[in-house]
Amino acid sequence: MSPEDAVRAVAARAREASHELATATRATKDAALHAMADALLAAGPDVLAANAEDVARAEADGTPANIVDRLRLDDARLAAMAQGLRDVAGLPDPVGEVVRGSTLAKGLELRQVRVPFGVVAMIYEARPNVTADAAGICLKAGNAVLLRGSSSARSSNAALVAAMRGALAATGLPEDVVQLVPGETRESVTALMRARGLVDVLIPRGGAGLIASVVEGSTVPVIETGVGNCHVYVDASADLDQALAIVLNAKTQRTSVCNAAESLLVHRDVAREFVPRVVTALQDAGVLVHGDEEFASRDGVVPATDEDHAAEFLALEISAAVVDDVEAAIAHVRRFSSGHTEAIVARDQATIRRFVAAVDAAAVVVNASTRFTDGGEFGFGAEIGISTQKLHARGPMGLPEMTSTKYVVVGDGHVR
Amino acid sequence: MSPEDAVRAVAARAREASHELATATRATKDAALHAMADALLAAGPDVLAANAEDVARAEADGTPANIVDRLRLDDARLAAMAQGLRDVAGLPDPVGEVVRGSTLAKGLELRQVRVPFGVVAMIYEARPNVTADAAGICLKAGNAVLLRGSSSARSSNAALVAAMRGALAATGLPEDVVQLVPGETRESVTALMRARGLVDVLIPRGGAGLIASVVEGSTVPVIETGVGNCHVYVDASADLDQALAIVLNAKTQRTSVCNAAESLLVHRDVAREFVPRVVTALQDAGVLVHGDEEFASRDGVVPATDEDHAAEFLALEISAAVVDDVEAAIAHVRRFSSGHTEAIVARDQATIRRFVAAVDAAAVVVNASTRFTDGGEFGFGAEIGISTQKLHARGPMGLPEMTSTKYVVVGDGHVR
Repeated sequence: MSPEDAVRAVAARAREASHELATATRATKDAALHAMADALLAAGPDVLAANAEDVARAEADGTPANIVDRLRLDDARLAAMAQGLRDVAGLPDPVGEVVRGSTLAKGLELRQVRVPFGVVAMIYEARPNVTADAAGICLKAGNAVLLRGSSSARSSNAALVAAMRGALAATGLPEDVVQLVPGETRESVTALMRARGLVDVLIPRGGAGLIASVVEGSTVPVIETGVGNCHVYVDASADLDQALAIVLNAKTQRTSVCNAAESLLVHRDVAREFVPRVVTALQDAGVLVHGDEEFASRDGVVPATDEDHAAEFLALEISAAVVDDVEAAIAHVRRFSSGHTEAIVARDQATIRRFVAAVDAAAVVVNASTRFTDGGEFGFGAEIGISTQKLHARGPMGLPEMTSTKYVVVGDGHVR
Repeated sequence: MSPEDAVRAVAARAREASHELATATRATKDAALHAMADALLAAGPDVLAANAEDVARAEADGTPANIVDRLRLDDARLAAMAQGLRDVAGLPDPVGEVVRGSTLAKGLELRQVRVPFGVVAMIYEARPNVTADAAGICLKAGNAVLLRGSSSARSSNAALVAAMRGALAATGLPEDVVQLVPGETRESVTALMRARGLVDVLIPRGGAGLIASVVEGSTVPVIETGVGNCHVYVDASADLDQALAIVLNAKTQRTSVCNAAESLLVHRDVAREFVPRVVTALQDAGVLVHGDEEFASRDGVVPATDEDHAAEFLALEISAAVVDDVEAAIAHVRRFSSGHTEAIVARDQATIRRFVAAVDAAAVVVNASTRFTDGGEFGFGAEIGISTQKLHARGPMGLPEMTSTKYVVVGDGHVR
């Protein structure tokens, strides 16, 4: 069987299994989630042994230590994965929710009801916890899931999926609602991108290159996630102590995440006071500043190129520029934003209203860190990624975002 | 300038104009819509003269009379287009609607607010009324629109757009929120499909071939519309008089529309009584029945192939089959459905619940005609098409479906 046929066969089994899952009750799905959590813990030794193989292979290949760390599982991380599944069981079932309803002019009853997509495919890198998270969220939303992890996590993912499938069989749901995609190759990604009609939605999570290639090439509808060139704009009306704390938190609290700040804009009227303070504070925190001429006059600041202003560093680096006013800040954001999260620090109400209205992004944050754009912080209980596209879902995606809707129209012999 | 560059230049102007439109008030947008309606009426003689050119060219080319009829404008159709714009002005503004909101654990205020997509491109065929309808709906939802009509309506569309742009200039909104795409060629469609970053959403309306090629090839997110292989399933528990009226209405009330019935399924237990009645009634209405063996034994019924069961005839033809039970009906629908509208006629509550839960389509209709899946019938006031995809919008799309959302997060110096 060709790699493409192998992927299509798995997708066809997912489609078949999705029919039964789509009409399963919440009680059945929650029982399955708890059984999957139990199974992960019971399979702990097998999973950790498989993970040790992946870690050893990564280390032998000279993989950077921070990537190896993301790959590594231990008892605590396994327990967190199991708890994540139990947390999803505790969330309301999105399926069946009546989004709107009315009685139409001729007496027909109309309801718009949440329904599962059907089959969701996830393409992701390194971290094995995504395997359990995605399986749990998709299952609760009534979707069969196809998991295409990275080759570096092959053994870990196989062990995790085997444990979860065993639990499904025992609870009466079809095992094939959770499946690994065969082959962690480029071909398996291409096959998923071509599986229109078998796969309803494709969600790439990972580096910008992976996401761009899926978005450009897929015939299956895609939800684009996670590239964040997030800006913090410090207005002339800002409380500068607050601004300093927000910039530092947004840049340094965690650097490898899509909601970290990558670009700093400072209003010209406060540049003389604020630029030296923020440069010193950032440098003290180990941050390399790529600045425009106003910033680059400071020791240790390197000149910023357009590439720097557009960059998602995911590291202790930031681009920085002085702007004449809020309109110039908005224009800079429009030019370089990836549409993830854009923040303003300001006290002037009119300036805040203008920035919030004019900036087009998944999240616009006022007087707070960009790091708050997160399903957990938003209280969603579970997050499958952060959408940076405008269609269907934008921002952190929880259970409702993993559903579609259908209209149910009930009459009594009505004709037009 | 190459055809692709010409399209990109128009799209770039739309993007620029969209910024101003996105923050325009409802009052400004409604005034523009009324001005556009006035301008269409004032330009009536020019529009009708331009339309006469299109009609003459179509007739000289030997275009079928029903297509020429769709192309033809007269005073009444022009008045209806103007009234359509006024009707859209009367609808609530979707932009700014707070979809949900809460105060987060740390005191941040969170709101999810409807915002325009930005730039919407429509690709459509023949009917010039779509030009005004799409412009009006997109404008009200805050989107700049790129209109790519068919070459057969070139002169009509040019006259309509010139009138509407003139009105925009007078109301202070940028003219470029409504633009024709240069060239009614294959190249202009391809250029729109490649305009990722300039065009936010692409909506093809027209034949199945056009829609399929856009859906398969576009790097811009697409909303798929309108192919309908709609089924009517007549259960053993149906009121057969009601069933007969529903089948006839769904098939014959208007044949060229996507919500017309194209397939009939009859439960075996009522086939002996119902098949002769429905075949006679359909044939009396001029319908050619493509039937399975149970149907094909009747005079004038031709044997149905799988292609017939899958076909969207858009004509006085229907495929028909007898099924053993509701599960067989569901299986048949799953195999051949285009996911538009599927109807059941039944009195048994358990059967209805099962059909509604198991059938995956934009609309599932109980004891009524498939013809009710329509933005007007649903009370939306305006409709830009009927989505048959699961992402973002499913079923008739009104103003809210022409928007995205963004999160606004307001704090007071919050950091993580």
